[in-house]
Amino acid sequence: MKTYKLAVVGATGLVGQTVLRVLEEFRLPIREYKLFASKRSAGTTTSFMGQEYVINELTDTSFDEGFDFAIFSAGAGVSTRFAPIAASKSCIVVDNSSAFRMDPKVPLVVPEVNIEDAFCNSGIIANPNCSTIQAVVALKPIDRVFKIKRIVYSTYQAVSGAGQKGILELENTSNGLPHSKFAHPIFNNCLPHIDVFTENGYTKEELKMINETRKILHRPDLRITATTVRVPVLNSHSESINVEFENPFCVKYVRMILEKSPGVIVLDDPSKDVYPLATIATGHNEVYVGRIRRDYSVPNGLNLWVVADNIRKGAATNAVQIVSELIKHDQ
Amino acid sequence: MKTYKLAVVGATGLVGQTVLRVLEEFRLPIREYKLFASKRSAGTTTSFMGQEYVINELTDTSFDEGFDFAIFSAGAGVSTRFAPIAASKSCIVVDNSSAFRMDPKVPLVVPEVNIEDAFCNSGIIANPNCSTIQAVVALKPIDRVFKIKRIVYSTYQAVSGAGQKGILELENTSNGLPHSKFAHPIFNNCLPHIDVFTENGYTKEELKMINETRKILHRPDLRITATTVRVPVLNSHSESINVEFENPFCVKYVRMILEKSPGVIVLDDPSKDVYPLATIATGHNEVYVGRIRRDYSVPNGLNLWVVADNIRKGAATNAVQIVSELIKHDQ
Repeated sequence: MKTYKLAVVGATGLVGQTVLRVLEEFRLPIREYKLFASKRSAGTTTSFMGQEYVINELTDTSFDEGFDFAIFSAGAGVSTRFAPIAASKSCIVVDNSSAFRMDPKVPLVVPEVNIEDAFCNSGIIANPNCSTIQAVVALKPIDRVFKIKRIVYSTYQAVSGAGQKGILELENTSNGLPHSKFAHPIFNNCLPHIDVFTENGYTKEELKMINETRKILHRPDLRITATTVRVPVLNSHSESINVEFENPFCVKYVRMILEKSPGVIVLDDPSKDVYPLATIATGHNEVYVGRIRRDYSVPNGLNLWVVADNIRKGAATNAVQIVSELIKHDQ
Repeated sequence: MKTYKLAVVGATGLVGQTVLRVLEEFRLPIREYKLFASKRSAGTTTSFMGQEYVINELTDTSFDEGFDFAIFSAGAGVSTRFAPIAASKSCIVVDNSSAFRMDPKVPLVVPEVNIEDAFCNSGIIANPNCSTIQAVVALKPIDRVFKIKRIVYSTYQAVSGAGQKGILELENTSNGLPHSKFAHPIFNNCLPHIDVFTENGYTKEELKMINETRKILHRPDLRITATTVRVPVLNSHSESINVEFENPFCVKYVRMILEKSPGVIVLDDPSKDVYPLATIATGHNEVYVGRIRRDYSVPNGLNLWVVADNIRKGAATNAVQIVSELIKHDQ
């Protein structure tokens, strides 16, 4: 069996640390791991694969020693600067940042949805935005059969989506301390404001959901709107998804399709209070789908409630899955 | 000036107590107030209008002494039994419960929207569901000009909507104590489950939003779907509302209409992080509207973010406003 050398960039962050946990679980044929972070963390150690790994400072020459893969989770700035360097040295980068997602030369990949795109890469593969990943995992299998016509997204996004600082901010504002990470206190509020506002009144997060869904589904003209909202929940994003399909469907069959879809767990038995919840999804790699019911206000309308661990499937797990698939096809 | 005698039924509950606060603020020409609750609370006192009022037990003969108005906030059971008795004794009941809302003989009234309906009553006027009230206050002024074609509601509803027990449950589950009021712990979760589930997979809360919006707007066939969600927020409901209109509109004009609409406060300056929030709405009687922006996925689409104090405008204030309007027209 071929073995590989993998770099984890941003290994000390919330996503990076979860990348390490997922790598431990996935047991890929990696012969050597190397962990990178900023100068601030360099020289410290972190537990990984049952031992203490030293954190190395990421520099222009970090990739000179040769890597097969690198998983970047250190923000758009670091990715913009270092991912092309890694790629130029034959390392395939799976990038968790937004830096390259909409670059037409860069595939934007969710393994359950469009793994085929990953193989046509020029060294960089982008990991989509967390809220988009879980949506398309649930939508693609139904789209295949009934063809999506329009999507209305309303999200309920956890504070962990803003990293350790987001988590701390929920705790701090719960204790009456002032806010600093979010524009307003997240405690006792739902903030309709994730990432920055753009000129047309949409936030970047909303535009990401619209544009990334289109790119992943290969439907550049798909009609989508989105309202993305931060809620005072620690981890796992929930989404109210309203979809119209081109073709008539029966709800039972949609449920059956989802039950058989990779990476999807259907939790949908309202009579027993069974539906997806953030605390159920947290710590798991799957996308949970429930409240599957017809929207009677349009001919082929459907409502879904979709929940996933935004740090796992929304970031770390999806990235590791991409590497795993590339390795599988390289054996 | 004519003066009136008013009964407050359910005076010790979360809504009932807020009815008292709103009555203190509104200073209606009421010459005599009488407060009622269940046997359990009878004999206790509560502060109201600067003095201590005795709570009386509600019985079949409570309305024999003659009342002009009664505001009921004691649940559907109490309303079903006692509101007809009050009405039969010439008392006009404004009922906060769901008992009579869809009764074709009972007007369902939001003063800013359809106060005219209130005058055609047979002794009972229903106060709509909290999540519906704030939605129609925001939607009606735009509907008047551009005619709504379809609505997709996704709600972010505070625990106070479930009364004192809901508030206690958020506190308890935050402290690791078990849940009892909601089907699952509300701490760190968004529960897509308000009121009970019905056969078609919708909750009663979702059906209330659909049916009550239609009744209040006098549009029995209006196309609406809804996903209603309880969030770990103390007070004030937020709503992501997606609307399609029959006629073309310009967003600036929509904003202008809303700015001039009674009971609406527009908070919509994203560049300055200004948008409605639960903590801003709490304690106020108005409906806050922001994130007003075009939905580009349909010809005449609009997204709104609508927040209001569910105990005030969603219940107590709306009821007192109805009484206030009836008095104004009776002078």
